Amino acid sequence: MRHPEAKTRLPTLGEEPGVLLPVSGNGAEAGDGVPLIRLLDYGPERCEETQFRSIAEGLAYQPKGKVQWLNVYGLQEPEVLKVIGDRFGLHPLVLEDILNARQRPKLEDYGSYLFFAARVFHYQEGSGRLGYHQVYLVIGKGFVITFQNQSIGLFQGLRDRLHSGKGLARQRGADFLAYSLIDAIIDDYFGVLDAFTLRVEKADSTLLGNRDNGVLRTIHRLKHDSLRFRRALLPLRDALNQATRGDHPHFGDESRIYLRDAYDHTLHLIESLESSRDMVSGMLDLYLSNQSNRLNVQMRVLTVITIIFMPLTLIVGIYGMNFEYMPELHWRYGYFTVLAGMLVISSLLGYYFWKKRWI
Amino acid sequence: MRHPEAKTRLPTLGEEPGVLLPVSGNGAEAGDGVPLIRLLDYGPERCEETQFRSIAEGLAYQPKGKVQWLNVYGLQEPEVLKVIGDRFGLHPLVLEDILNARQRPKLEDYGSYLFFAARVFHYQEGSGRLGYHQVYLVIGKGFVITFQNQSIGLFQGLRDRLHSGKGLARQRGADFLAYSLIDAIIDDYFGVLDAFTLRVEKADSTLLGNRDNGVLRTIHRLKHDSLRFRRALLPLRDALNQATRGDHPHFGDESRIYLRDAYDHTLHLIESLESSRDMVSGMLDLYLSNQSNRLNVQMRVLTVITIIFMPLTLIVGIYGMNFEYMPELHWRYGYFTVLAGMLVISSLLGYYFWKKRWI
Amino acid sequence: MRHPEAKTRLPTLGEEPGVLLPVSGNGAEAGDGVPLIRLLDYGPERCEETQFRSIAEGLAYQPKGKVQWLNVYGLQEPEVLKVIGDRFGLHPLVLEDILNARQRPKLEDYGSYLFFAARVFHYQEGSGRLGYHQVYLVIGKGFVITFQNQSIGLFQGLRDRLHSGKGLARQRGADFLAYSLIDAIIDDYFGVLDAFTLRVEKADSTLLGNRDNGVLRTIHRLKHDSLRFRRALLPLRDALNQATRGDHPHFGDESRIYLRDAYDHTLHLIESLESSRDMVSGMLDLYLSNQSNRLNVQMRVLTVITIIFMPLTLIVGIYGMNFEYMPELHWRYGYFTVLAGMLVISSLLGYYFWKKRWI
Amino acid sequence: MRHPEAKTRLPTLGEEPGVLLPVSGNGAEAGDGVPLIRLLDYGPERCEETQFRSIAEGLAYQPKGKVQWLNVYGLQEPEVLKVIGDRFGLHPLVLEDILNARQRPKLEDYGSYLFFAARVFHYQEGSGRLGYHQVYLVIGKGFVITFQNQSIGLFQGLRDRLHSGKGLARQRGADFLAYSLIDAIIDDYFGVLDAFTLRVEKADSTLLGNRDNGVLRTIHRLKHDSLRFRRALLPLRDALNQATRGDHPHFGDESRIYLRDAYDHTLHLIESLESSRDMVSGMLDLYLSNQSNRLNVQMRVLTVITIIFMPLTLIVGIYGMNFEYMPELHWRYGYFTVLAGMLVISSLLGYYFWKKRWI
Amino acid sequence: MRHPEAKTRLPTLGEEPGVLLPVSGNGAEAGDGVPLIRLLDYGPERCEETQFRSIAEGLAYQPKGKVQWLNVYGLQEPEVLKVIGDRFGLHPLVLEDILNARQRPKLEDYGSYLFFAARVFHYQEGSGRLGYHQVYLVIGKGFVITFQNQSIGLFQGLRDRLHSGKGLARQRGADFLAYSLIDAIIDDYFGVLDAFTLRVEKADSTLLGNRDNGVLRTIHRLKHDSLRFRRALLPLRDALNQATRGDHPHFGDESRIYLRDAYDHTLHLIESLESSRDMVSGMLDLYLSNQSNRLNVQMRVLTVITIIFMPLTLIVGIYGMNFEYMPELHWRYGYFTVLAGMLVISSLLGYYFWKKRWI
Repeated sequence: MRHPEAKTRLPTLGEEPGVLLPVSGNGAEAGDGVPLIRLLDYGPERCEETQFRSIAEGLAYQPKGKVQWLNVYGLQEPEVLKVIGDRFGLHPLVLEDILNARQRPKLEDYGSYLFFAARVFHYQEGSGRLGYHQVYLVIGKGFVITFQNQSIGLFQGLRDRLHSGKGLARQRGADFLAYSLIDAIIDDYFGVLDAFTLRVEKADSTLLGNRDNGVLRTIHRLKHDSLRFRRALLPLRDALNQATRGDHPHFGDESRIYLRDAYDHTLHLIESLESSRDMVSGMLDLYLSNQSNRLNVQMRVLTVITIIFMPLTLIVGIYGMNFEYMPELHWRYGYFTVLAGMLVISSLLGYYFWKKRWI
Repeated sequence: MRHPEAKTRLPTLGEEPGVLLPVSGNGAEAGDGVPLIRLLDYGPERCEETQFRSIAEGLAYQPKGKVQWLNVYGLQEPEVLKVIGDRFGLHPLVLEDILNARQRPKLEDYGSYLFFAARVFHYQEGSGRLGYHQVYLVIGKGFVITFQNQSIGLFQGLRDRLHSGKGLARQRGADFLAYSLIDAIIDDYFGVLDAFTLRVEKADSTLLGNRDNGVLRTIHRLKHDSLRFRRALLPLRDALNQATRGDHPHFGDESRIYLRDAYDHTLHLIESLESSRDMVSGMLDLYLSNQSNRLNVQMRVLTVITIIFMPLTLIVGIYGMNFEYMPELHWRYGYFTVLAGMLVISSLLGYYFWKKRWI
Repeated sequence: MRHPEAKTRLPTLGEEPGVLLPVSGNGAEAGDGVPLIRLLDYGPERCEETQFRSIAEGLAYQPKGKVQWLNVYGLQEPEVLKVIGDRFGLHPLVLEDILNARQRPKLEDYGSYLFFAARVFHYQEGSGRLGYHQVYLVIGKGFVITFQNQSIGLFQGLRDRLHSGKGLARQRGADFLAYSLIDAIIDDYFGVLDAFTLRVEKADSTLLGNRDNGVLRTIHRLKHDSLRFRRALLPLRDALNQATRGDHPHFGDESRIYLRDAYDHTLHLIESLESSRDMVSGMLDLYLSNQSNRLNVQMRVLTVITIIFMPLTLIVGIYGMNFEYMPELHWRYGYFTVLAGMLVISSLLGYYFWKKRWI
Repeated sequence: MRHPEAKTRLPTLGEEPGVLLPVSGNGAEAGDGVPLIRLLDYGPERCEETQFRSIAEGLAYQPKGKVQWLNVYGLQEPEVLKVIGDRFGLHPLVLEDILNARQRPKLEDYGSYLFFAARVFHYQEGSGRLGYHQVYLVIGKGFVITFQNQSIGLFQGLRDRLHSGKGLARQRGADFLAYSLIDAIIDDYFGVLDAFTLRVEKADSTLLGNRDNGVLRTIHRLKHDSLRFRRALLPLRDALNQATRGDHPHFGDESRIYLRDAYDHTLHLIESLESSRDMVSGMLDLYLSNQSNRLNVQMRVLTVITIIFMPLTLIVGIYGMNFEYMPELHWRYGYFTVLAGMLVISSLLGYYFWKKRWI
Repeated sequence: MRHPEAKTRLPTLGEEPGVLLPVSGNGAEAGDGVPLIRLLDYGPERCEETQFRSIAEGLAYQPKGKVQWLNVYGLQEPEVLKVIGDRFGLHPLVLEDILNARQRPKLEDYGSYLFFAARVFHYQEGSGRLGYHQVYLVIGKGFVITFQNQSIGLFQGLRDRLHSGKGLARQRGADFLAYSLIDAIIDDYFGVLDAFTLRVEKADSTLLGNRDNGVLRTIHRLKHDSLRFRRALLPLRDALNQATRGDHPHFGDESRIYLRDAYDHTLHLIESLESSRDMVSGMLDLYLSNQSNRLNVQMRVLTVITIIFMPLTLIVGIYGMNFEYMPELHWRYGYFTVLAGMLVISSLLGYYFWKKRWI
């Protein structure tokens, strides 16, 4: 049971907080390791997408639409992040959080913008392990910046809708964009929780056929996964609840109704997760009780066999004794009488145990 | 143990929130698959029921009484829902929630109306599984709209009372109607929890006769059912508590007293449920302890039998040895002495174990 | 384990809330099935008790003292209740609650009066089951009405004190009367919890002598009883806490100090109950561990016996073989040598297991 | 497992609340059964101690210093208590609480004075049982009254300090005196919790040597003791927290800082207690797992012995058969071949099980 | 399982609170047992470090920079502490807390300064036990005093940064210094929790190879360690939350944002800890289930062996009987027939059990 979150990164060990260090080994690359920055600049009438090749190019860009959505992938380069942070006036701690690949879900108010951190899960192709990606949102007046390690297609649907101009998204402001992004994150959970439920059901159906500890390992892994989901969903719920309550001026009343809906979906996700967890717990009980049942059956068989054979063995032992004077030995049908007697005894015992339902 | 809520519908996956999608496979039909819309238009003096054949017919209707109760069954047609939503000014998210067949119980304030979602349970005819239906209430000024997938007779009693004019219902406004509908939902829970309690008792009475894991499966199913009830009742309680506290101007003071009573009934339901859950937990303990007891008995029998027969078998083995010089073999009554000795030994051992209460 | 609260009465199933239905089978009668209504009309100077034969008689009565205490027993007649309700202006829901024999303890403020519902327990004579009675108080300005199914002598002490004029009760108003009634209810709990504790101790003392599941059944019954006490005491505590906090103008400052004392007694009761519950839990652990211990002992005995006898049996088997050339068989003291060897072997094994403390 | 708090005293059963009844059997005596009343009258300059022989003497006393500390031991005489209550204007319920030997820790505000009840524990000399004493404080303006059943030396240190004039106590007012008394009570807990921890450690060190249920009994007693400590400490913590928050004008700002320190010590005590509780829980797990381990070992031995001896016994049985034509019986070295074969078989099996680590 | 926090120091047993007593046996020395006092006096421009040889020297020092950080190690001498306390106006209780080596983490507001107590853990070199050090901070206007028992290099990184002038620390005030110190403490937790996680993983990997109770002991120690971490982290979280909420004027808005980040890191630490705790719980389940599995396997083997050999032994016993008339004994191939029959029987039984997957 290798601990999936074993290596705790020491964020600022011996370093001042707010100093940005590259995170190596996160494998967060978009093609050639160069961070990929994409801008969607849109309003009710138009939507334009620009992909920046260099930082200078980005700084030179003049926004045209009502809302700007800056999508940044791959963050090994603290330099790039620093430039973006300076451009939008982000606090050093926000940048440090973004570089830190193990941020817990949260919503923080920095006055002129909100910082939202979330986590999306997926089952890895080969190992079947549960992996995750961090997603960060900076929600400001008229703009939203999203940060991801890799392009995982999370916001593809929203991008398509913005391009095609279908739906409300292009009519509304940056707060509705932020909501739509959060909604996309929540939708992603529905998918991965379905996959989780399927795994639970599969484990359940092979539960009683197995004898080894493999099942137990599987149960514990499922339990562990459910705890990881839980640990991501509970702070997400709290963050959405906080956003819904109206403490932040960044969300308008209309968007807040939508956020309440997103909050409701998280509650739903959590309940669905709890339901799966109950099932996993039930599996553990069932497995242990089944082991105990099996032991019972084996012991019953052993006891019955012993009780039937021991008297018979004693009888044949008796007539194997070498006493000079043993009258039965000389009877004409002694041997057959004994055989018949043994048959009767074993039949009676067998019948008795059959009646007692021990066989 | 097939998971009853396994398939999580992805409400807006890749779609914009608020876009209505037909839910197929919900089997929600009233006769010929056409949604059934029924209007009860009443006041202290009169009560008139109209069933709309077409949407146009409905839109043309002029209300005459003080209160309108629009009862809508079968919701595969997002079109119909959209027309109703436009007519009463419902928020797109409300409509999406109504289409979504797995909404959790809640009470939401949309300013000019309240949206109330609940769930009623029933045991399915054939499988004995616990199924449920969603019920939605939109409570506005002078009107209440109820949405159900199927006609399940939930509000039949109230309809009869409105027609006959007995009781208070016709004297009061839309808030009392809303209360009466909620009360009917809660009454339905009393029935299904009775059925649940009966199942618990039946399982309890067959608990110790059984040997296989079937009992355990049953116990786990009952536990699971109780969790499902719990998950429906707890948010229902919270919603009623919220309605009682007086945050919503939709309920008058008089209706609020009635709501407090409904709230009290939910508390009662929850306690009754907890009581059944305790019983189920006790059954599990009892079952496991019974398994352990049985193992104890079997082992005791095995041990006693072994202890009694092993010395006897040794003795007959001794006199089966072929030594040339074994004086006992030549005794006149050697054989009978040995038999008598064996009888004495086994009697003493038997007496000993009987005294120790091992037999 | 028959569920003591199995049959859930459906309070208003298909009926309008507030419609009064007779509860049959509650066996609530005072003599000849006629409700018994008794009025204590008292002030500092005097105390007069009247028993009403008819409703008309009651309605005609003119109060003379400062405080009226109307004590109503036996409530199968919704008619009588309705008259009382009209006379004192009680809400229909209060009347419905009083008719409902399974109200949970609560305190409700109806503006001009408070409604207090409580439950008192007793162990039934024959079955030893835990039964309960409902008690209701309506606390108004200058009067208190108590409703009980049967006369169980709960308020006898208070009645005597009012008649004799000892103590404070006659000096004070209706709020002190209400407190005194609540105090009598709490005192009753001290008695029944003592009886419960005695049962726990008795079960504990016979715990290890028993082998069957009867003990387990007893433990589960005690656990269940403790949960029922708990479910009655926790809302009682909350109701008293609510009354103490000063939200209700029905209680004066002086009476509130007394109520705080009653509240404190409930806390004490709850702690005493928790203490008994711990003991019951400990009994369950002890019982299961004892079963496991016993299995251990049996297996140890079986193992030791098997290990001692198997080699001996093998040895006698060896010398029972029929080989032509077996030199030992022809030795003069072969037989005795073998017997001695067997004695040595079994002694050594016995000593070994004795040293290892297996015997 | 005799329940240490089995007998629940019925405080006012059938009696009016506030009526004082002597508590017999509490063994609360100071020498000759006469209550002992001692007054410490002190100010910054002086400290005088008077012991009252009679109630009249006490009533005639004229206070001279700034602060009076009245220390009352032994309370079988409700009369004495009543006189004190009248003299200082104590509420009848306070007096009743003081007479009641099983008051839970609490802090109650009676306007002109505070009433503080606490409990101190000790391990009884002979039985090693956990006993306790009740201590009550009445904290007024310029005076503190302490009530104890017996002189247990709890406040001796403080008395010495007041006499000697060392430290702050004589400089400060009645609130600091009250704090010092509470501090002495908390200090007493440090001692008894140390004794408890020692018992836990002793039980832990003898855990695995024992086989019987005695260990389990000990574990349950320790668990029970820890629950009793907990039940005394949690309300004590709450009372101190309440006193610290500044709701009571009886404590000045300076004393409140000291009370916060006392509150902190209670938190510390509770954590230390929790730590011991964890250890007790761990012991239970360890004990049960050890039982299970032992069973495993026994079964392994039984299995190995059976597997080794059964084939050997079969072989010697084969050559004990009396067939006429059995060629091996006539071989010259048949006997030795068989013996050698048996040796080989048992060696191989032994080696196999040794490799599998079953031996 | 020696209790690591067994000896509870009695802070003021029989002594007045606030009286300082030397703590012996804490081994808190800096070189020659003399407390080591080091002052860092810095501002944006400069940073000067002075080490005081005597108290007089310290008292004579004139601060030059904006912020003073006084670092005190080794506190056996209440005298020194008293001088420092007088110099900075610290409350006697603060000094007592600092002397007390077992203070729980907390943040206390003393008006003109804040008192912060924390605990850092480390695994001891030889024993591998979890030890801890107490760290105290007094945060005033323009100065911070840190108290430690020993120099453990906790603040070395910060000292270096202050000397070198890198980063923000020298630009900011005493509140940022306080934050940086707290951050260093939290960073230290990341390291020790990593070590803890490694231990958990190592125990997990050797879980199933072991048979003895050693594993269980290890599991319980890990559980105990995790509880100790938890007990230190939860109050630390609360203290930081309190500092973040803005109740204390000692922290500016900017520092508060940094403190919120530190708070967030504690949340992260707690989650990481919970994750390890889950793993430890899983290990316990796995270990117990593995024991049960092993028992099952052994019993299965025993049962199979018994069932196969018992009939064979009976058969050879039959033909070892000495009856005169036993026709089979005289058959030409009787012996071989019997041997063949035995082979067939054992093969069939073996095949049967192999099919049933018992072998």
